Amino acid sequence: MLAAPALDDRRFGLNRRVTLPGPLTLDGGASLSQIEIAYETYGTLDADGANAVLICHALTGDQHVASAHPRTGKPGWWTRMVGEGKPIDPARHFIVCANVLGSCMGTSGPASIDPATGVPFAMRFPVITLRDMVRAQALLLDHLGIWNLAAVVGGSMGGMQVLEWAATYPARVRSAVVIASAARHSAQNIAFHEVGRQAVMADPNWRGGQYYESKEGPSAGLAVARMAAHITYLSEAGLTDKFGRRLQARESKTFGFDADFQVESYLRHQGLSFVDRFDANSYLYITRAMDYFDLAEEHGGRLADAFRGSKTRFCLVSFDSDWLYPTAESRAIVHALNASGAAASFVELSAPFGHDSFLLDVPELFRVVDGFLRAAA
Amino acid sequence: MLAAPALDDRRFGLNRRVTLPGPLTLDGGASLSQIEIAYETYGTLDADGANAVLICHALTGDQHVASAHPRTGKPGWWTRMVGEGKPIDPARHFIVCANVLGSCMGTSGPASIDPATGVPFAMRFPVITLRDMVRAQALLLDHLGIWNLAAVVGGSMGGMQVLEWAATYPARVRSAVVIASAARHSAQNIAFHEVGRQAVMADPNWRGGQYYESKEGPSAGLAVARMAAHITYLSEAGLTDKFGRRLQARESKTFGFDADFQVESYLRHQGLSFVDRFDANSYLYITRAMDYFDLAEEHGGRLADAFRGSKTRFCLVSFDSDWLYPTAESRAIVHALNASGAAASFVELSAPFGHDSFLLDVPELFRVVDGFLRAAA
Repeated sequence: MLAAPALDDRRFGLNRRVTLPGPLTLDGGASLSQIEIAYETYGTLDADGANAVLICHALTGDQHVASAHPRTGKPGWWTRMVGEGKPIDPARHFIVCANVLGSCMGTSGPASIDPATGVPFAMRFPVITLRDMVRAQALLLDHLGIWNLAAVVGGSMGGMQVLEWAATYPARVRSAVVIASAARHSAQNIAFHEVGRQAVMADPNWRGGQYYESKEGPSAGLAVARMAAHITYLSEAGLTDKFGRRLQARESKTFGFDADFQVESYLRHQGLSFVDRFDANSYLYITRAMDYFDLAEEHGGRLADAFRGSKTRFCLVSFDSDWLYPTAESRAIVHALNASGAAASFVELSAPFGHDSFLLDVPELFRVVDGFLRAAA
Repeated sequence: MLAAPALDDRRFGLNRRVTLPGPLTLDGGASLSQIEIAYETYGTLDADGANAVLICHALTGDQHVASAHPRTGKPGWWTRMVGEGKPIDPARHFIVCANVLGSCMGTSGPASIDPATGVPFAMRFPVITLRDMVRAQALLLDHLGIWNLAAVVGGSMGGMQVLEWAATYPARVRSAVVIASAARHSAQNIAFHEVGRQAVMADPNWRGGQYYESKEGPSAGLAVARMAAHITYLSEAGLTDKFGRRLQARESKTFGFDADFQVESYLRHQGLSFVDRFDANSYLYITRAMDYFDLAEEHGGRLADAFRGSKTRFCLVSFDSDWLYPTAESRAIVHALNASGAAASFVELSAPFGHDSFLLDVPELFRVVDGFLRAAA
């Protein structure tokens, strides 16, 4: 197998970034002459390279799965899943998480400098797909000397990448964990994303995407986009439990347009804090990639054909309160896996948090993933 | 009882408008010195005045319930319910529908001229409640010489007004038909409305509401608000049936940001056509009134107390695919009516169209309302 990497291998660790030679040909027909990828690794790669786990992040996620976010200072976004004593444990696993293509945390995206012009791509960045994201990750793994993955794991858009990994590189993926996800974007999913894109593009500060040299970006539009999306990440019951119709500190309604209800100020905060950490054009590109995602369509219209002959073991998890990617979407994937003869386990968990359950305190999720990964190992 | 009005009573007919003397004291403490109300009537008031039916419209509705909209030329918004041979029939009923307070189709609202200043109120218009809307309608009915209503009927925000009518003027309402509605706005309802308001107010052309003298109003923001709201009016299954992931006339994805999917161009069209017919500030005021709506809170926290001793007969209808005001909201109203001893019938209808089912071709709805109104007569 592979030679064990030196312990001081400078490719490994936190806050890594690499420029990989291209060209990377994209599903849309364009190609990138080179690809920068920002990533992190945790733990040590086994001598036989068999303990590598790739984690795929969601729409607005990043590579800081278990380390502090450099801009917000907040802990990693999946410290419940990744860390000492957790289902994905650097004491046992060699963990890789890379910022996806099109994003804004160091990997090539619309805010990157176009080598051909010396200025940011902006909307000249090619439209990408989830498969393009996965191809870029595969190039990174080649660079890291990792051929085979013990597991690819992700929730939401991360789960879509896991499916693409299993479909595109079946020989490289021993097990696949797909949480709160879907094999294609529904009309309602597309509709919500389109609202967000229109909110960004309606902001005069968006300037056709050419705002990188301006004092002001399309913050107001991006905040509105985030607010709309955020509602879809939560359940109606969860919002009611958390906020109900409770007013802000004030004792009664103001009969004005300030945030009277706690849920209003919560949403406004979600919108405003998002624009500090995310690039509006990246939001356009990644939502577009998600809307284009339809794994069955990529395989002649039959989802089972995406997994035909696959030796990968699959674990699917959905949440009963998730109305963005409801259980029926996971079930459709399981049916396709069964039809293709692939090994699949599936559980719908009860959790009150809606789609965001995969990020939150749902102990059963971590037990399920831990059990699956140990059994698969 | 009342004297029968002359057949050529100029108060009655299409496209009526009246200025009623105030002051009308509002729930927020402010008062309006006079109130303009735009309304329509259909049919003839019986000699004993017993056949009057008031129809209450929804958020972006208007008084043109069964006549062509003056700006769009489209037929009235509820010609399935109101018309010859329909459940509410001008051959039998004297039908009144008024544009709600705060709206923009002729009734006093933020676009109206403030008599104190001679310029449009804009955001100096007082924040109103659903009860204020109903109080203004009561003034109109006084003006029309209608004391007693055979029925008050409405869907969505119209249904909320029906509930307010029954709670505020129980002696005037013989029967009440509440369709696809709720007795309060949930946290999720408020959240979606807040996204819409922020979209409007983020548009630089909104100018703090002072756009009436400008060439451009906040069209882009209002269109985004409408797009987000429109998704909540439809069901996921309905969107999938209607659009699925079908592309526009083009044969394949464009790998760009034009509307590739039919659902995208449909939503864009919904947003754009809305701004031609609706005032952005009215959208702010009416959504605010809906978010403030909590009938239990107005009655000491107990919804049943809103109907205590009521002689009104209630008919409630919900739709199984309505996730904006789901069946549970109607059921909570029915429980309160039962607890208060009021007569209530309730049915959940199966229809694929989501919240908008009350406006669409659901024959069972019209049978239910027809049967109820005939039994109540």
